[in-house]
Amino acid sequence: MEITPGPLLAQINNPDDLKKLGKDQLVAVSNELRQYIIDVVSIHGGHFGASLGVVELTVALHYVFNTPYDQLVWDVGHQAYGHKILTGRRDNFVTNRKYGGLSGFPKRSESNYDTFGVGHSSTSISAALGMAMASHYKGENDKQHIAVIGDGSLTAGLAFEAMNHAGIENSNLIIILNDNCMSIDPNVGALKEYLTDITTSQTYNDMRDNVWKALGKLPIGKNFSREMASKLEASIKGVVSKSSNLFEALKLRYFGPIDGHNVVKLAETLADLKKIPGPKLLHIKTVKGKGYELAEKDQTKWHAPGLFDKITGEIKKKVYELPQPPKYQDVFGHTIIELAEKNKKIMGITPAMPSGSSLKFMMDKMPDRAFDVGICEQHAVTLSAGLATQGMKVFCNVYSSFMQRAYDMVIHDVAIQKLPVVFCLDRAGLVGEDGPTHHGCYDIAYMRCIPNLVVSAPMNEKELRNLMYTAQLESTKLPMVIRYPRGEGVMPEWRTPFEEIQIGKGRKIKDGEEIAILSFGHPGNFAASAIRTVKADGINPAHYDMRFAKPLDEELLHEVFGKFKKIITVEDGTIVGGLGSAVLEFMNAHGYKADVKIMGIPDRLVEHGTPKELYKEIGLDAESIAAEIRSAVSVKILQK
Amino acid sequence: MEITPGPLLAQINNPDDLKKLGKDQLVAVSNELRQYIIDVVSIHGGHFGASLGVVELTVALHYVFNTPYDQLVWDVGHQAYGHKILTGRRDNFVTNRKYGGLSGFPKRSESNYDTFGVGHSSTSISAALGMAMASHYKGENDKQHIAVIGDGSLTAGLAFEAMNHAGIENSNLIIILNDNCMSIDPNVGALKEYLTDITTSQTYNDMRDNVWKALGKLPIGKNFSREMASKLEASIKGVVSKSSNLFEALKLRYFGPIDGHNVVKLAETLADLKKIPGPKLLHIKTVKGKGYELAEKDQTKWHAPGLFDKITGEIKKKVYELPQPPKYQDVFGHTIIELAEKNKKIMGITPAMPSGSSLKFMMDKMPDRAFDVGICEQHAVTLSAGLATQGMKVFCNVYSSFMQRAYDMVIHDVAIQKLPVVFCLDRAGLVGEDGPTHHGCYDIAYMRCIPNLVVSAPMNEKELRNLMYTAQLESTKLPMVIRYPRGEGVMPEWRTPFEEIQIGKGRKIKDGEEIAILSFGHPGNFAASAIRTVKADGINPAHYDMRFAKPLDEELLHEVFGKFKKIITVEDGTIVGGLGSAVLEFMNAHGYKADVKIMGIPDRLVEHGTPKELYKEIGLDAESIAAEIRSAVSVKILQK
Repeated sequence: MEITPGPLLAQINNPDDLKKLGKDQLVAVSNELRQYIIDVVSIHGGHFGASLGVVELTVALHYVFNTPYDQLVWDVGHQAYGHKILTGRRDNFVTNRKYGGLSGFPKRSESNYDTFGVGHSSTSISAALGMAMASHYKGENDKQHIAVIGDGSLTAGLAFEAMNHAGIENSNLIIILNDNCMSIDPNVGALKEYLTDITTSQTYNDMRDNVWKALGKLPIGKNFSREMASKLEASIKGVVSKSSNLFEALKLRYFGPIDGHNVVKLAETLADLKKIPGPKLLHIKTVKGKGYELAEKDQTKWHAPGLFDKITGEIKKKVYELPQPPKYQDVFGHTIIELAEKNKKIMGITPAMPSGSSLKFMMDKMPDRAFDVGICEQHAVTLSAGLATQGMKVFCNVYSSFMQRAYDMVIHDVAIQKLPVVFCLDRAGLVGEDGPTHHGCYDIAYMRCIPNLVVSAPMNEKELRNLMYTAQLESTKLPMVIRYPRGEGVMPEWRTPFEEIQIGKGRKIKDGEEIAILSFGHPGNFAASAIRTVKADGINPAHYDMRFAKPLDEELLHEVFGKFKKIITVEDGTIVGGLGSAVLEFMNAHGYKADVKIMGIPDRLVEHGTPKELYKEIGLDAESIAAEIRSAVSVKILQK
Repeated sequence: MEITPGPLLAQINNPDDLKKLGKDQLVAVSNELRQYIIDVVSIHGGHFGASLGVVELTVALHYVFNTPYDQLVWDVGHQAYGHKILTGRRDNFVTNRKYGGLSGFPKRSESNYDTFGVGHSSTSISAALGMAMASHYKGENDKQHIAVIGDGSLTAGLAFEAMNHAGIENSNLIIILNDNCMSIDPNVGALKEYLTDITTSQTYNDMRDNVWKALGKLPIGKNFSREMASKLEASIKGVVSKSSNLFEALKLRYFGPIDGHNVVKLAETLADLKKIPGPKLLHIKTVKGKGYELAEKDQTKWHAPGLFDKITGEIKKKVYELPQPPKYQDVFGHTIIELAEKNKKIMGITPAMPSGSSLKFMMDKMPDRAFDVGICEQHAVTLSAGLATQGMKVFCNVYSSFMQRAYDMVIHDVAIQKLPVVFCLDRAGLVGEDGPTHHGCYDIAYMRCIPNLVVSAPMNEKELRNLMYTAQLESTKLPMVIRYPRGEGVMPEWRTPFEEIQIGKGRKIKDGEEIAILSFGHPGNFAASAIRTVKADGINPAHYDMRFAKPLDEELLHEVFGKFKKIITVEDGTIVGGLGSAVLEFMNAHGYKADVKIMGIPDRLVEHGTPKELYKEIGLDAESIAAEIRSAVSVKILQK
């Protein structure tokens, strides 16, 4: 379907074109931009609510600032669709998040306007401050550096660390706090309540307004120097210092809150702020999903709704004749409740992913035992460790790539102390459209080197349930990682009875001859499919589901290396340091000699696309595994 | 030398004994405790200033609270010496930090009073909150949970994440902010300035005092319920809400600041706070090194001074006749200045370790180009990435075990974007007396799996200089890790001219027969020593310094595997997933068959002791390597 931009938007090929518009046209162009995003996302998919919420801000920023000379950093880039459309990528925007197309996030290699790659939250202030410090050092004193960060992202420690530093650096840094009370789910924590307080406090705002008006009258740039402005501002600030707020406490000049959907006011405010030297913060209030009524009403659902009918708002779902396998996420969400009903020690923790992880089911049913702690992976892990010291069995559910944020806490607070926390690493493997920032591909390698830690992955729903069951048993004394991918498993009849799995025991899926496949986790299904395929070629590989990358099932491996000289390992983690390497370490330690082919995620960035496209690209789909089996069996590998 | 505790301290075998004392004896017992710490540390070494600063707090806490039922968490445990002495470890305290002796940090396996293992900073609030939430869930409503955290530790994002959550949880959490304006070096950042502001603001304090007095009069526990107290307190809080402070903004009730060396006032205050439900923060002012004049005056020097004469204050240093090799740290510190004098793009960043890393040299000489950002590893890395986007060549110096905190930033902000940041990982390998929380043993494994990243380690001072030189060249486009241990290298004449090292090129140190040693980093010297030893046995191993764990020198490895069937790899990182595994991956990928012995840090916790003791224990000293060489050469490894 042809998507046509509005008449103003159609003329905007870069921010220079936008700057040619009069202020009175900003509302119109904002409306066109919003409509274009709705048109494209409804047909092509992608994130939705976040970008709708910052349409006016996006227009105002590119209208006022001299991008890309001025450096604009979008926190968690999924709010940057408008930015992409205004900066030369309008017509290409239909390829957003598609294989070979535009990235769903800002990406330095895609455009000069994308100053910093952002996918994980809360990096923008640090990055923009680094840019500002470099400009200061180079004497580029006119250069502006703007971080746009949501109130959800602000709860992460990194953002606080950056503000603590920004306050004492004399740099041209503008932090724009886009306050919509949301991350993907509603934002939580004391800071959120605080922002509501200062937004609604009349006394506070009156005082603010006075300062604001006074500042608006500063005739900077005429006979009035920056230094004078700064002094005057400092004295005006005295008026409000008694009501000093959290940001002022961190030495950031605080402005706002103002309506983030009033594009003219925004543009005027930003133009004023540009003239005020030093680090500062502008608090704007926006509505996630603004301008699309359904998205405003159910913001979590419309964060990334998939394809939809933009007129009726009907979200398009595939219709199946037969029952489909559930998502691993839902298996987790239902299973933890089943377990928690019997084991009173079970608790659940998620850092801001209650819907994504399906821990929400438990939060709704057992609100005293399941908690969303906000975008705080580090805290989520150390809090879980604290709970574990008191005998609780905590399921701490964190996406694999986000767990990178809490790596030290896994080592220092959990593994070194042997506290039996259960880490459910969701979104393991290639996640698809979110691309390289979100692929959960390093976890096997970075977890496997930690002592005392069990690293497991289920091949299907039953295995996930049994691993969860095993993890919560009193007899399981070690911390345990259970990693599984985003999306559907393979068992429509998934609600199987619980069975304990012995820690470190794999399972033989089938006997075979000449060659053995050792798989880890969900890609075992790709391997199983490959094995069915090569049957037609008269090849009959054995298949083992390792289940544990640590500890390895040494008994199983002795069996395998005793029988087979050709082995293929299959995993959805890096081939560097992953399960395959663990198998090599075993082989080497025990003096076995065999030809091992390690299949996994190659040692390079894998870009975005559907998981299917990506697994094919990297040669980890069933077809590639089948090809590898055929090649291993038919060709004798050169012995050197 | 016999160390005799004072008469009161001599009677205290646990906090129950302390509770038998009258309030009027608290000053005396504090003085005895302080003297005992001075006596022991001067002769046996250890951390010094931090524990002296909290002597009164330690006495007051154990006097007032029902430890170990009440849960006391010491942030960065090196302040917990007094705590250890009062909780049954007085006479054993002379073994502190010694091989087989007490840990220098609280450790759960050592004592019931040590509720949480702490070595890295800023974990205490999360851990204590977890404990408090567990107690709340279990209905143990009388149980108290206390986190003692310094103002330095408070700058780390984890602490902020925890406060943001603590403010909305209804739990018995008391945060004690031990404000001494220091981490190891003077604390930095906006928060530090803020704490000074609120401490010195008279108006603010007057208002506080009024509330304080009012609260002191609450007759809780008699005819007055907690609920009533809570209501009354809320109304009194209205008095100060207009002067709401940062902690109040985070919904933590703020009390203080009070003098942290007035033990009676402290005890009374803590007893009052115990009666007030909900999360709260007590701000106390202390002096690091309190009671030992020299330590008060030069707090960084006396953080962990080594052995000293407690009367004269003379710090005992070994005297050598010949020039000794410098510390790797000093080589780094001097070399970055040499390089920065020629390359204007070079900048230096350290998260709170200017003295420890010797970046201080550059901070003193080039204050516009070298920065201490506080205890903020995450921010340090993302800030460096931001600087790198503007063409700066940033040397970001972070201790290996602390880099675990910034793992996501290394992947997400640096490696994925291919920004050529240089990570100098100090304290790699076994660090010695600080023990398992501080050993830098996981970095090879956790860095090696990241695409685009170069992972290197110098075998000596010259190599460190050349790797640093290479890293800052314009032609080096990739981010690069340079890891090196704490302490002395091997070259007294270390100021060698700079030479470029080709990325991914190792070097042959010596030819040999039958067996080859592949070493990585400083332990190459252990290997060289072992090779000299086995010469007497008529064994002549070849020795290669790999220099790079990534990318591997494939040409060199083809040479090695072409010539040798027996290979030993030597590294001071985990044998799981480290350099040895990289060599196995190469061997496997190219179809070589050889017997490889991987020598490194075993897959278990290594406790504390001197590095020499520890390397001997784990079999990585020269003698163990020599034994391994002899065994490999004389015994044919069983071929299965």
